[in-house]
Amino acid sequence: MTLFNRQILLASRPQAAVTPDNFKLVETPLAPLGQGQVRVRNHYLSLDPYMRGRMSDAKSYAEPQPLDEVMIGATAGEVVESNHAAFAVGDKVAGMFGWQEYGTSDGAGLHKVDDTHVPLSAYLGAVGMPGVTAWYGLNTIIAPRAGQTIVVSAASGAVGSVVGQLAKLAGCRAVGIAGGPDKCRYVVETLGFDACVDYKAGNLYEDLKSATPGGVDGCFENVGGEGLDATLARMNAFGRIALCGMIAGYDGQPVPLAQPSIILRSRLLMQGFIVTEHMDVWPQALRELGGLVAQGKLQYRETIAQGLENAPEAFIGLLKGKNFGKQLVKLI
Amino acid sequence: MTLFNRQILLASRPQAAVTPDNFKLVETPLAPLGQGQVRVRNHYLSLDPYMRGRMSDAKSYAEPQPLDEVMIGATAGEVVESNHAAFAVGDKVAGMFGWQEYGTSDGAGLHKVDDTHVPLSAYLGAVGMPGVTAWYGLNTIIAPRAGQTIVVSAASGAVGSVVGQLAKLAGCRAVGIAGGPDKCRYVVETLGFDACVDYKAGNLYEDLKSATPGGVDGCFENVGGEGLDATLARMNAFGRIALCGMIAGYDGQPVPLAQPSIILRSRLLMQGFIVTEHMDVWPQALRELGGLVAQGKLQYRETIAQGLENAPEAFIGLLKGKNFGKQLVKLI
Repeated sequence: MTLFNRQILLASRPQAAVTPDNFKLVETPLAPLGQGQVRVRNHYLSLDPYMRGRMSDAKSYAEPQPLDEVMIGATAGEVVESNHAAFAVGDKVAGMFGWQEYGTSDGAGLHKVDDTHVPLSAYLGAVGMPGVTAWYGLNTIIAPRAGQTIVVSAASGAVGSVVGQLAKLAGCRAVGIAGGPDKCRYVVETLGFDACVDYKAGNLYEDLKSATPGGVDGCFENVGGEGLDATLARMNAFGRIALCGMIAGYDGQPVPLAQPSIILRSRLLMQGFIVTEHMDVWPQALRELGGLVAQGKLQYRETIAQGLENAPEAFIGLLKGKNFGKQLVKLI
Repeated sequence: MTLFNRQILLASRPQAAVTPDNFKLVETPLAPLGQGQVRVRNHYLSLDPYMRGRMSDAKSYAEPQPLDEVMIGATAGEVVESNHAAFAVGDKVAGMFGWQEYGTSDGAGLHKVDDTHVPLSAYLGAVGMPGVTAWYGLNTIIAPRAGQTIVVSAASGAVGSVVGQLAKLAGCRAVGIAGGPDKCRYVVETLGFDACVDYKAGNLYEDLKSATPGGVDGCFENVGGEGLDATLARMNAFGRIALCGMIAGYDGQPVPLAQPSIILRSRLLMQGFIVTEHMDVWPQALRELGGLVAQGKLQYRETIAQGLENAPEAFIGLLKGKNFGKQLVKLI
């Protein structure tokens, strides 16, 4: 019996906002497994904002996603067939197989994960790239001290939720920015932030001011635009900004920074980073994050779309902030 | 015979651009010198962009200049009377006496300078605060390596001219941005920069691109606005931006940064600084800068207004880029 692999390819590059017809679903028969290869049935696909950048061919830190090839993406699944000494059928693994149901690999970039105390899906979130992103930007760029105030945008998301909880564990005041009362309530009540500002309430600067009576010492920025402008205006001298994402401008129009002179006036440090360029911190970060999840000290939430065919719609929703927590696609 | 001291006070705060009626010239009789005091006849007053910030009462890193008091400013002059053991008549000194012809002090903040090999006025420029500003931002924030390309705006000015020459001494390619062909010619032919872009020629980005064929690794920013936008767009990955001044926005309207996403995309570091917060580097910086000036290895140029009464006009001109090199007022 020939197995068929369903895959989603990049069919065209978005002109502005991503649309469903930028993607194409195909079915491809799986070739027999070669010598030294391992085959994985992907259970979860991770959807992340960085994918929007890869869909364009503008100059960026990474090569663009090629047209008519499987969309890039992190996956977690189970080995279903193996001609590779390091992997056995039934092993749980995380890798970068992209938007498809099966992955075939010589083992490069694939690593076994233990889902005894940490759910498989968490290896795509709090104990995966988003978690390490939060860990790196907070610990390495912001380097917070107890008693400082840290603001993070997209606070209920996969990265932001970890930033604020790590900041709390470091003895800081954690203030989130998120869209809507439900997300804000979750950020405070479940994640344990001290406050959360609803940017959709139309009073962003004043609400942030109320939430940060002692000013802001560190900013972990995932969005850009109005929220970043407001946070900059609240920064204390020598504050630090880790620039992780600017999702507000991913659909084309560059979003300006209204008052860059604040960086000078308050002697701020602003630094952009890409977590995959700092692989040296990953083992330590993943060890710490895995430990916290296993002990129930690091909360996270997932929005799970069902079925590969629903990945494009889920991704478009992610770019609009429709997800609530880590956006995944369940593939099985 | 009673000596009169002429002084310029801040009469009102500018609403937008600085105007002559923001200042007031007064004559005040000098009180007899007290015990432990020293009196200095100021020869030169330094005019610097930071003074514009002090004239406003907006939140800033420093207290605003009080109304009806002598405008703040660095001065260099000669001791004319002394009741202080550390200062003798005839000593050359640099201090912060502000916009006035005589200064009276208990010695705090006043230091003797040697004008044998370094002209007195240079202690307000290349061997003073502007020189240390250049030294600090370049060496500490940009930390250039030989072969890298460094861009500096206001390249013919007191700070920018030192930045580019220090970059050349460090083995870098130095590219200036300045206003008009005369300044640009001076920057290349006299200061020894590799290239200089005339921002008034109307083709800033393309001209900067031509001048930086290998991209830009370090940016020393004195101006902000279009020049900073163009430089950011030319930055190589992991480039560093020392934010020293944003004179383009000093007259009220904040000048936005068009594409802050470049900071993320190219993983840049941008840091604002105020040199008076880093007094620990001053002795080393001044020793090095003084040695370079004495050996003729550090060129500088001065625009000198004659007479205290012309200081306001000279300052207004400085904010518009009318000066050519370090703006001074000769007071004697």
